Amino acid sequence: MSATSARPHVVIVGGGFAGLWATRALAGSDVRITLVDRRNHHLFQPLLYQVATAGLSSPDIAAPLRHILRKQRNVEVRLGEVIGLDKTARTVSLADGDALHYDYLLLASGATHAYFGHDEWSADAPGLKTLDDALAIRRRLLLAFERAEACEDPAEREAWLSFAVVGGGPTGVELAGTLAEIARHTLKREFRNIDPSQARVRLVEAGPRVLASFPESLSEKARRQLHKLGVEVVTGTPVSAIDERGYTLGDRFVPARTVLWAAGVAASPLGALLDVPRDRAGRVPVQADLSVPGHPEIFVAGDLASVQQNGKPVPGVAPAAKQMGSHVARVIRSRLAGATAPPFRYRDFGNLATIGRMAAVVDLHGLKISGLIAWWFWLAAHVFFLIGFRNRIIVLINWAWAYWSYQRHARIILGGQETGQERAP
Amino acid sequence: MSATSARPHVVIVGGGFAGLWATRALAGSDVRITLVDRRNHHLFQPLLYQVATAGLSSPDIAAPLRHILRKQRNVEVRLGEVIGLDKTARTVSLADGDALHYDYLLLASGATHAYFGHDEWSADAPGLKTLDDALAIRRRLLLAFERAEACEDPAEREAWLSFAVVGGGPTGVELAGTLAEIARHTLKREFRNIDPSQARVRLVEAGPRVLASFPESLSEKARRQLHKLGVEVVTGTPVSAIDERGYTLGDRFVPARTVLWAAGVAASPLGALLDVPRDRAGRVPVQADLSVPGHPEIFVAGDLASVQQNGKPVPGVAPAAKQMGSHVARVIRSRLAGATAPPFRYRDFGNLATIGRMAAVVDLHGLKISGLIAWWFWLAAHVFFLIGFRNRIIVLINWAWAYWSYQRHARIILGGQETGQERAP
Repeated sequence: MSATSARPHVVIVGGGFAGLWATRALAGSDVRITLVDRRNHHLFQPLLYQVATAGLSSPDIAAPLRHILRKQRNVEVRLGEVIGLDKTARTVSLADGDALHYDYLLLASGATHAYFGHDEWSADAPGLKTLDDALAIRRRLLLAFERAEACEDPAEREAWLSFAVVGGGPTGVELAGTLAEIARHTLKREFRNIDPSQARVRLVEAGPRVLASFPESLSEKARRQLHKLGVEVVTGTPVSAIDERGYTLGDRFVPARTVLWAAGVAASPLGALLDVPRDRAGRVPVQADLSVPGHPEIFVAGDLASVQQNGKPVPGVAPAAKQMGSHVARVIRSRLAGATAPPFRYRDFGNLATIGRMAAVVDLHGLKISGLIAWWFWLAAHVFFLIGFRNRIIVLINWAWAYWSYQRHARIILGGQETGQERAP
Repeated sequence: MSATSARPHVVIVGGGFAGLWATRALAGSDVRITLVDRRNHHLFQPLLYQVATAGLSSPDIAAPLRHILRKQRNVEVRLGEVIGLDKTARTVSLADGDALHYDYLLLASGATHAYFGHDEWSADAPGLKTLDDALAIRRRLLLAFERAEACEDPAEREAWLSFAVVGGGPTGVELAGTLAEIARHTLKREFRNIDPSQARVRLVEAGPRVLASFPESLSEKARRQLHKLGVEVVTGTPVSAIDERGYTLGDRFVPARTVLWAAGVAASPLGALLDVPRDRAGRVPVQADLSVPGHPEIFVAGDLASVQQNGKPVPGVAPAAKQMGSHVARVIRSRLAGATAPPFRYRDFGNLATIGRMAAVVDLHGLKISGLIAWWFWLAAHVFFLIGFRNRIIVLINWAWAYWSYQRHARIILGGQETGQERAP
């Protein structure tokens, strides 16, 4: 073991896009890497909404980190939760009691959803960040239609058929569009007492328009495409309260048994371990080499990092996380070679968001596309970037099938042995 | 609604093989059917062990009952849990407070695993009956290898790499065979501190041989095939204790962190609602027309029914359940037409069990096959009987992939947000 110990030890926390890309970019380097993640898999987060809406299964968009990295012999994958950091001793401590000494540390633990001081909403308006979140949302959506079918009171039935998605960013738009498709097409003819296409799907955005990170004309296109799919878009009005009976829009209460949260993101709480200033969303402002001020051996990348470029923040999207991860690997390699890497530059290849069946918007440096062509572009890009050959094929087959049949194969309610109902008192 | 109410109401409890086949066989009849199930899906139970061992995803072997029956207009599918039966008033009551009045009732709620008076073993030796069971077992298997990898104490590591399956019936044989395959092939090269192929996989059967329902020569073949796959088969010795540290075989304690239960089956507790004599396993002895003595309007089918034929019990297998379900439909149709159906006869098409990669045993009325040919036979039969066209194709692709690559695509640990570890004290 003495030979391995002589090599610098790189500890990477988080197997998302930033952490995994950093790990891979260090494949040929004379370092030993420990990749720590709380979960055993890398998740292709851009398709998570498809798992939530029963279009894809969990393994379609996730692969075990161990499996992805099995051929990279300088990596050890460690399932574990980081709970402490000692910058002086250069150790990271894990929940199971172990401690890892590092020469270089990369914190890439990503982001979680945030309720802006309303954590009490989390039970009634679940957010979407992990596979477990997606399965919980799937369960909730499918059960809502079951409840409506079994329910005899018209007002209660309407509340079960009333869905709201809070937040008009890409995730909110995807969820609302797909939800409308499920109600209008997928569940058609399957119920006897309700007409699922009468379900009300509302997308609520506090700001003036959906997809605020896109040019205004594409926001407008997205709004119109959502409308065509059956989504009611409400902008300019914040949600002021959420409970198990519904939500309050401005000062009007709307009965709704299913509210999904896609409004806020906060950086992973692991950022706090660094004990350096963070921005309002909990992100860590980093140097040009993505290291933490005063600690050149500690890097932050992905959604946990706050990087400014040309006076604008680098967005929290997968390509940015991959680029940051690869850059950190480059900096480490340069340092080991006694050289200096150039500063990080984010290359923006464009912005795309899907809305639902055959509807999407794409912004490629001013080239704006919407509708069917944008959807095909989105589909190709996402399938191409899916990790692992098998997944791509299976995802394509699932999508082709869903496309022709309007069916969604993963409509299986899991978790909670029973029907999810409380027993009658 | 008065026109529909005039038709006899058939309430079917359970959407497994018996209940679903009865429902379908009543498609053309002038009845209205309510199919009640606690879960929203029909499950192809013979492949459940593949979900537990990460070879298939849940939606590969399950389909929403609503979707399967969407075109059968005389059926209403009801997600609900039956908690009461009033034979005089002819009503079934549900946990959500509703009650269903029936003219004919079919109880087909199946079986659950049983610990023969040792319910305290259930936490440390989970059984396999539902998709949730399968995902819990998957989680446990995958986490065991993770724990072993992270563990520095050799004795503890060995306990994490020690697996036992209790019960040498078809499920136990399938689980043990597949587990050995995972350890020997699937996880190869993925770990750095352990060699998964050193894992000890033991199949423990209290009786004299595995697959006791097969001819002795096939039991012997199965034992040899298991041995070749790397499974240690122990027969003739009962497990006398199980706890979180391991199990006791006869009077010897064996450290093992993963014990799976495939030893006992008991009929669904719903049988008790009938208030008639039941056999030791909780099954309800039925008449020749599968009705309950004294209640010609109440039928029992599938694993909940005890049927004798030529002095032998009809086995608790999928083909028997399907045949019983169809027979109940036939009896109801005959009665409505003022005729009498012939008594139920179980047609035994043979018995087959898979052992692992390219190993199986098949008994077709004395024609005994084992090994590779039996495995192909098993594969063809199971894929053929899978419900739903899409599933068959996807399952075939998954298997073809698994066959060539030794990979299992569903190795995603779900549930329990974190690593499943307790935090260090």
